[in-house]
Amino acid sequence: MGYTDLDWLAINAIRLLAVDATFAANSGHPGAPMGMAPVAHVLFNRILKYNPKNSKWVNRDRFVLSNGHACMLQYALLHVAGYKISMDDIKAFRTVDSITPGHPEAHDTDGIEVTTGPLGQGFANAVGLAIANHHAAGVFNKPGFELFNNYTYCFLGDGCMMEGVASEAASLAGHLQLGSLIAIWDDNHISIDGDTNCAFTEDVALRFKAYGWHIEVVADGDNDLDGIEAAIKKCQAVHDKPSLIKLRTTIGFGSKLQGTGGVHGAPLKADDIKQVKEKFGFDSAKTFVVPQEVYDMYNKHGAEGAAQEQEWNQLLSKYSGSHKAEAEDLKVRLSGDLPEGWEKNLPTYSPSDPAVASRKLSEIVLQKIHQAIPSLVGGSADLTGSNLTRWKDAVDFQPPSLGLGDWTGRYIRYGVREHAMGAIMNGLAAYGTVIPYAGTFLNFVSYAAGAVRLSALSQVRVIWVATHDSIGLGEDGPTHQPIETLAHFRALPNCMVWRPADGNETSAAYYVALTSKHTPSIIALSRQNLPHLETSTIERASKGAYVVHEAEKADITLVSTGSEVGICIDAVKYLKEKHNLAARVVSVPCFEVFDAQPKEYRLSVLPDGIPSLSVEVMSTMGWERYTHEQFGLNRFGASGAYKDVYKKFEFTPEGISKRAVATVEFYKDVPNIRSPINRAFQQLI
Amino acid sequence: MGYTDLDWLAINAIRLLAVDATFAANSGHPGAPMGMAPVAHVLFNRILKYNPKNSKWVNRDRFVLSNGHACMLQYALLHVAGYKISMDDIKAFRTVDSITPGHPEAHDTDGIEVTTGPLGQGFANAVGLAIANHHAAGVFNKPGFELFNNYTYCFLGDGCMMEGVASEAASLAGHLQLGSLIAIWDDNHISIDGDTNCAFTEDVALRFKAYGWHIEVVADGDNDLDGIEAAIKKCQAVHDKPSLIKLRTTIGFGSKLQGTGGVHGAPLKADDIKQVKEKFGFDSAKTFVVPQEVYDMYNKHGAEGAAQEQEWNQLLSKYSGSHKAEAEDLKVRLSGDLPEGWEKNLPTYSPSDPAVASRKLSEIVLQKIHQAIPSLVGGSADLTGSNLTRWKDAVDFQPPSLGLGDWTGRYIRYGVREHAMGAIMNGLAAYGTVIPYAGTFLNFVSYAAGAVRLSALSQVRVIWVATHDSIGLGEDGPTHQPIETLAHFRALPNCMVWRPADGNETSAAYYVALTSKHTPSIIALSRQNLPHLETSTIERASKGAYVVHEAEKADITLVSTGSEVGICIDAVKYLKEKHNLAARVVSVPCFEVFDAQPKEYRLSVLPDGIPSLSVEVMSTMGWERYTHEQFGLNRFGASGAYKDVYKKFEFTPEGISKRAVATVEFYKDVPNIRSPINRAFQQLI
Ligand SMILES: [Ca+2]
Ligand SMILES: [Ca+2]
Repeated sequence: MGYTDLDWLAINAIRLLAVDATFAANSGHPGAPMGMAPVAHVLFNRILKYNPKNSKWVNRDRFVLSNGHACMLQYALLHVAGYKISMDDIKAFRTVDSITPGHPEAHDTDGIEVTTGPLGQGFANAVGLAIANHHAAGVFNKPGFELFNNYTYCFLGDGCMMEGVASEAASLAGHLQLGSLIAIWDDNHISIDGDTNCAFTEDVALRFKAYGWHIEVVADGDNDLDGIEAAIKKCQAVHDKPSLIKLRTTIGFGSKLQGTGGVHGAPLKADDIKQVKEKFGFDSAKTFVVPQEVYDMYNKHGAEGAAQEQEWNQLLSKYSGSHKAEAEDLKVRLSGDLPEGWEKNLPTYSPSDPAVASRKLSEIVLQKIHQAIPSLVGGSADLTGSNLTRWKDAVDFQPPSLGLGDWTGRYIRYGVREHAMGAIMNGLAAYGTVIPYAGTFLNFVSYAAGAVRLSALSQVRVIWVATHDSIGLGEDGPTHQPIETLAHFRALPNCMVWRPADGNETSAAYYVALTSKHTPSIIALSRQNLPHLETSTIERASKGAYVVHEAEKADITLVSTGSEVGICIDAVKYLKEKHNLAARVVSVPCFEVFDAQPKEYRLSVLPDGIPSLSVEVMSTMGWERYTHEQFGLNRFGASGAYKDVYKKFEFTPEGISKRAVATVEFYKDVPNIRSPINRAFQQLI
Repeated sequence: MGYTDLDWLAINAIRLLAVDATFAANSGHPGAPMGMAPVAHVLFNRILKYNPKNSKWVNRDRFVLSNGHACMLQYALLHVAGYKISMDDIKAFRTVDSITPGHPEAHDTDGIEVTTGPLGQGFANAVGLAIANHHAAGVFNKPGFELFNNYTYCFLGDGCMMEGVASEAASLAGHLQLGSLIAIWDDNHISIDGDTNCAFTEDVALRFKAYGWHIEVVADGDNDLDGIEAAIKKCQAVHDKPSLIKLRTTIGFGSKLQGTGGVHGAPLKADDIKQVKEKFGFDSAKTFVVPQEVYDMYNKHGAEGAAQEQEWNQLLSKYSGSHKAEAEDLKVRLSGDLPEGWEKNLPTYSPSDPAVASRKLSEIVLQKIHQAIPSLVGGSADLTGSNLTRWKDAVDFQPPSLGLGDWTGRYIRYGVREHAMGAIMNGLAAYGTVIPYAGTFLNFVSYAAGAVRLSALSQVRVIWVATHDSIGLGEDGPTHQPIETLAHFRALPNCMVWRPADGNETSAAYYVALTSKHTPSIIALSRQNLPHLETSTIERASKGAYVVHEAEKADITLVSTGSEVGICIDAVKYLKEKHNLAARVVSVPCFEVFDAQPKEYRLSVLPDGIPSLSVEVMSTMGWERYTHEQFGLNRFGASGAYKDVYKKFEFTPEGISKRAVATVEFYKDVPNIRSPINRAFQQLI
C-alpha cells in the first residue's frame, strides 16, 4: 500500500522497455507486458522474496511466466531488479546467441525458473514447483526451523487457460490443496483470434472453484495497485487451497491500439511509441530508458531479499547443528549429486535368474534404491499397479486432511493426467530438492509430448517409467501399442530413450538416468517376461550399446533392443542350425548414450565388413543410422495374446532368421561393407 | 418408462456377456460394462435411433464409448441389437484378427463410430460429431425438411474426465451451445489407482456448469431405469446447451468385488462368475447366453429404427425434388468423393511468380477451392492470422445467439486447444458430411499427438495446416522451432507428412490430402518466403518425390524438402563454380507417398551410382532411408531473424556445399554405390 508516482514511473519504464525491445527486434509481444506491468511491479517490488545476486537461493519465491511470449516483461523486471541481465542483453532481444530469446529459457538466463512459451506448460510447472515446496517443507521443516516457506507465483493468459495441460494441473493442484501457489490470470479478453468471446466464454473463476481453488478478483488491474496487493495478500493467507486472482487488464495499455489484438504479437508503430512515451511522461526521443530512481527502488527490495537469504543461511547453519542428517541430505540434494554409494543398491542379475518383465525389474530397482536416494519422488498417471512405480510402504504425497498420506509423501497420485504429469515433473525438477519419476504406458507419454520436449530443452532430470512398451502388451491392442513413440523421442535432442533387455540393462538405465543431471530419460519397459542375458552388465549397458553375443567370422550382426534381444539370441541358434550362418547380437538400450561413445568403441560394436540387421517391434525409423537392414513394424499392431501377436508379425527366431538370410544374401557381393557408424561429416551439436 | 423383468433380463445378459468374454480372453475390463449396463440398455433399447442393418445411415444417433476399455459393453449391445457382430465374434474377444479387439476400432467393426480407448479422445470425438450434426442441420435442413436431427451420446468414465483433451473439448462444446450432445459420466468413484478420492476430488458437475453445460444427476444408476430415461429426456429437451448426466453407478455390479478397483481391469474369478450368474437368475453352467426374448426386444427397437430410416429416405427423396442442389451436394459428401472438377481450382505457379511463404500458398489454395468443395470445414487453434487458414468472407461456425456466425459457418474458432482440435476433427470426419482441416504451428501438433495417432489408426481424412514449420520461424526461438516433429509423424503409420517447397507442391499436398479418403495429412508450411521451382508441377509433386534439377554425370544428389530445396538449388551453382561438382536436386514433399510409388520410379529419383545427401533443418532421423549422408539439425534451434538462424546452423549454399564435398569424397572409392532404395527384403504392411 502507499503507492506513489515513483511506482508508476517504474511500471511505465518496464512497459517502455518492452516497447523498445520489440520495436528494435521488429518482433515480439508488447501487449501483455504493457497490460501486466502494474501487477508485475507490485509483485516484484513489494511481494516477491528473492536475492538477485543469488538466483538459486532455494527458499526464494518462485515466479513463472506461463504466458512466455510476454517475456520482455520478465527480462525487464529481472534487469531492473539486478539479475544478470544487462541493458545490452535487453537490446539484443530475440537475436541469435543472446540470453534474451523469444521465449524465456531457464538454462540460458539468470532468474528464469522454467522454460515457457508453449502455452499451459508454465502453469503446470508452477504446480510442480508448489508441490516441491510443500514436500520440502514437510521433509525439512522442524519446530523452530521453517526452512521452506516460499510461495510460487504464476502469471498466465487466456491461452494457458484454454490448454488442457493447465486444466489437468489445476485440478490436481486443487486436490492437493497447494496453499503456496498463487496464479494470476491476465483476464484481458483478447487472444490471437481477437475477442475471447469467439472461443472462450466459460466462467473461469467458477471452474477453478470447482477444482477447489480460492478465488480473488481485481476489477481494475490497470490502475488499482492497492487492490492488486490486497488480493495477493489475501491469497497468501489461504493455506489450504491454491489461489487464482482474476485480474482484469487492458492489453497494450497506453498504446493507441490498447484493448485489441493489434498489440498482442507485433511491435508498436513508431508514431504509437511516440505518443505512448509522451503519455507516460518519457522523452520520446530516447530508447531503453530506466530512471535511476527505479533502479534504486528495486535495489532496495533486492537488498531486503539478500538480507532474508543471509538470515536463512544462519537458520540453516543452526539447523545443521541440531538436525545433522537432514542438513546433510539437503546439502546433497542442492548439489544435484546423489548420496555416495547409492549405486551399490542397484540389483544385478545372472542368466540363471528367472525371466522377469522389465516393468517388474524397474519396480525392483525403485524398491532397492529409494532409501539411498531420499530425493526420489515417484508417481503414476493412475496406472500404479500396471507401471509398478510404487515401492512397498511408500507414503503418498497428499494433504494431511484427506487421511491418505502427508506432505512428506514421496508418491504422487497424478490421476489420468499425463501431460500435466510431465509438466509438473519439470517444475519438481526445477525446484532443486527432488528428482521426479513417473509412470504411464509408453504409448501415452505421447499425450505429454509438449512437456517432454521442454524437459529436454530446459535440461532437467526427469524420468518416465514407460511400461507396456510395444505390441508385447498384447490384448489391449493397436490403440495402446506404440509404433512411432521411440522414433519420436529418439529424434528429440537431449532426451535419453532407454529400452532395456534384461535386469542388468534396467539397472543401467536407472544408473545413467539418475546420474545425468541435465537430461530427461524415458525408460521403455515390457509387460512380458524377459530372460537375463549372458553377458549384460550395468557397466556394458551404460555405454548405450554393446555386444551381447560375439561370433567368429560372423556373417551378420543382429542389432536389437528390449524384449527382442532375447529372441535374437534364439535366432542365432536357428541361423546356425538351419542356414549355417554365424550371427553376432548387439543390444542397444539407448541410442543417445551410444552416440556419445568414442568412435572406436562404436565401431567395435558395429564393425565394418559385416552386414547388420536391426530387430525391433516398432517403426524402423532411425535404425538406418546403425544398421544396413531393418526388421520392424511400420504399421499398427493387433489385439491378442502377446505371443500370438509376435507370431503374426513374425518376430520369432524363424522370422528374424528369414530376414537375416535375405540380408546376408543382399550383401554377399558388396566388397568392404562399411559400418553405418562411418560418416562423411560430423553433425552440428 | 414401464420397465419390466424383461429389461433386467436384457441388462443382466449384457453384463454376463462381458463377464464371459473377459474370462475367456483372460483379459479385459468387466467392471464398467457391469456398472453401465442399465444406462446402456435404456439408451440402446429405448432412446437411440439406429438401423442395425445399415450402420451408416447418416441421421442415426451417434454413440461413443469414450471409456473404450469397456468395449465388451459396446460389443454386447451391438451383437444383441443385430449389428454384424456374431456370438462367435464375441467369443473371439481380444484375439488376433477378430473384429472385437481390446478397444473399439471404427474401421474394423460394424456400428463403432470412432476408435476409442486412449482416454478423453472419445469424448472429444463426440463433440466433433455434435458439431458436424449442428453444421449439417444448418446447411441442409429446410422448412419441412428436418434431415438432420440426430443426437450424439457419449459414455465416459473418471479417466476421461481427468484428461485435458476432454476439458478442452468440454469448454468448446459449452461455448458452441451444442444442444445435440448428451454425455453420460459413469461416476463410480473408482479408477485404476483405487478410490478417485486419491487424485480426483473436484466438483465435476460444477466444472461443467462453468463451461456452460446443462447438468442432470441420477443418484442410483444401478437400479433407477425410470430415472435414467427421464434424465436423458430432459437433456434432449435442452437445445441451447450440451448436457452432462452424472450417473452414480457401482463398478462391477453383481460381482463379489463390486464397487472396488478389483473388477476394473481383470476378469472375474470362476467362483465369482458362478455366484453372479446365480444372483442374476442365469444358469451358472452356461456361457455366452442371450435369451431369445432379449434378442426379440432389441429386434423390435431395431425395426423401429429401420422404419425411421425408410421414412427419412422418403423425406430425402422429396427433398431431392425441391432442393436439387443441396441434395446433390449431400449425395457427393456421403460418397466420400469430391465434386467433379474441383481440382481445376488448384493454383499453379511458374518460376517467374514472386516468392511466397508456403503458409500463404496454403491460404491461396483454400481461397480457391472452398467454393468447389462445400464439405471443407476449417479452423485454427487461435492462430488464424498466423496459420492463414481462413478464406476471405468465411462465416464462423458459432451459435447464432453470439452474433459471431451461425450453424452453417465453415470456420471453427477452436481456441488454444490443439489436442481437442485434433480429436474433434476425428469426430467431424467420422460424421460423414465434412472434411475437416485446421491450423496450428507445426511444433504444437505435438500437443495433439494422441489425436493424430487415432486419425491414422482409424483411417480418417483430417488435414493439419502446420505452419511455422522449422527454425525458419525465426525469433520465437527454440520453444517453437520443431526439430523432432516431422520424424515423429513420419514414423506414424498411415499418416502423410507433407513439406512442400513451393506453390505447385503446396497444391499437390492439398490434392493428395483431399483425395486420400482414409489417411490424415499434416502439411508443414513455412513462415518465410520460398521461390517457385523450375520443374515442379502438381503431378510430379503428387508422387511424393521427384527430380527438381537433373545433371549429367552427377557427382551427388541433394535431397531436400520445403524451404531447403531452394537453397539446394543455389548450392548446385556454388558446387559447380567452387568445386566443379555436378549436383542433382530431388524434392521429397512426402515420404509416405513416395514410398508407395513403384520401385522403378523411386530408383529413377534416387538412382544407384551416385552418393546422396539429405538437407532438412531438423532431425536427420529417417533420412537414412533415402540418402547416404544427412545434413540436419539434431539439436535445438535459436531465436533470431530467420536468415541469421539459418546462417548460424550453416543452412546456406556454402554450408550445404561443404557437406556435399565431404560426401563425394567419402564415397569416391566405393564401387557400385547402391541407392538406399534397394532393400534386402520388404517390410510387413
Ligand atoms: Ca489474453
Ligand atoms: Ca471410474
